[in-house]
Amino acid sequence: MPDLPFLPFCACLGSLGLGCVAFVSAWCQHWRGGFAWDGSVRMFNWHPVLMVTGMVVLYGAAALVYRLPPTWRGPKLPWKILHSTLALTAFILAVLGLVAVFNFHNASGTPNMYSLHSWLGLGTILLFSCQWVTGFSAFLLPYAPIWLRTLYKPIHIFFGSTILMLSMASCVSGINEKLFFSLKNGTASVPYKLLPPEAVFANILGLLIILFGVLVLYALAKPSWKRPEADSLDTHQPLLGAEH
Amino acid sequence: MPDLPFLPFCACLGSLGLGCVAFVSAWCQHWRGGFAWDGSVRMFNWHPVLMVTGMVVLYGAAALVYRLPPTWRGPKLPWKILHSTLALTAFILAVLGLVAVFNFHNASGTPNMYSLHSWLGLGTILLFSCQWVTGFSAFLLPYAPIWLRTLYKPIHIFFGSTILMLSMASCVSGINEKLFFSLKNGTASVPYKLLPPEAVFANILGLLIILFGVLVLYALAKPSWKRPEADSLDTHQPLLGAEH
Repeated sequence: MPDLPFLPFCACLGSLGLGCVAFVSAWCQHWRGGFAWDGSVRMFNWHPVLMVTGMVVLYGAAALVYRLPPTWRGPKLPWKILHSTLALTAFILAVLGLVAVFNFHNASGTPNMYSLHSWLGLGTILLFSCQWVTGFSAFLLPYAPIWLRTLYKPIHIFFGSTILMLSMASCVSGINEKLFFSLKNGTASVPYKLLPPEAVFANILGLLIILFGVLVLYALAKPSWKRPEADSLDTHQPLLGAEH
Repeated sequence: MPDLPFLPFCACLGSLGLGCVAFVSAWCQHWRGGFAWDGSVRMFNWHPVLMVTGMVVLYGAAALVYRLPPTWRGPKLPWKILHSTLALTAFILAVLGLVAVFNFHNASGTPNMYSLHSWLGLGTILLFSCQWVTGFSAFLLPYAPIWLRTLYKPIHIFFGSTILMLSMASCVSGINEKLFFSLKNGTASVPYKLLPPEAVFANILGLLIILFGVLVLYALAKPSWKRPEADSLDTHQPLLGAEH
């Protein structure tokens, strides 16, 4: 692939990630009535903000930790801790995002977990929880033997990209669904099909999320940005196993 | 990654792909009134069937051509032709799928291209058209110099996976949207939120599409299933350039 420098790419990606968070927050604040934690539709508004921030932007940042050139030299352990902490933070935001939508549904008498968006979204978060627990157990706890880590590492990497891809699909289907709900014929001043400014804005948010996710997947796939394993003196150093 | 044999995996994947086509056809036939080419909602029904068949299943088959062990030996040209023919067939089905939805919208006075699903879906097909034309020009026509092919090949491969991923996201958002439209409160005998059999069936279709796509991406990413380039005597042999 063309030889781009990683750090300027990463800076652009960071701005794009912040742009996604700004867009989803502005959508919910400006057009959907803002935020509260009271079971109302203003509680629902935390759902898209927390999911985009957690499952896309922070998750993408976690995935890219080992692409930072400073991680290529010296001990790997601090970067493992950073990777797992960012992923755990993303997971906590996603769980709060689930609480926001479940509480809103329960308060308004709407059933939970019926749409394809909800099945895919919850499936993605469950997969992420398995990925985090397995990754922590295999790479940070001192119990997994080297052969098991070597076997599991490419699986962890593959599911890392897969979960990001599923998050993107969940976000796109969720934004699409929310716009059909909020800009319904007969209830909204301008329905979705006539493309009011809110619809254009939220559609662009969907495309920005896709662009961000695709660029993260590009950075992960680019061979020259991968950490050269041979340089690593402690590839298999676990969190609690310095004495081994 | 674990050392699975490719051909049994590929047979399972083929069955899953056929399962996706059977599910989307059964959904449209059994619950949505079947098929016609007359501008009615029965014309719309071709849209999901053609998109799933073209942009997911045939596209996935095209992407996997070079993972078939017989392609690793002997001339590469017949496999290049198979790859581009499968991709072109997928593209033609996708264009027919677009015609089906545009004709339905025009006949019923519904605007085109307003939802995030439509923006993402059309964007994916436009990207696919660029990918096909660029791939054909670079790898089958005799004009591109070797250095350009070498530069372009990893980009072609990356966009190959990306387009499949965008197709999956488009399908999921489209199925979700269609179920909200068709199983609306007050018009459907059982609305979407009460999960009638149609909703369960179409949600499962969405998950099968995701599973198929993820397995194709897994097969593409698995290093031991990649064509060893060193064995290829005619890696750069173009369609019209045997004399070069």
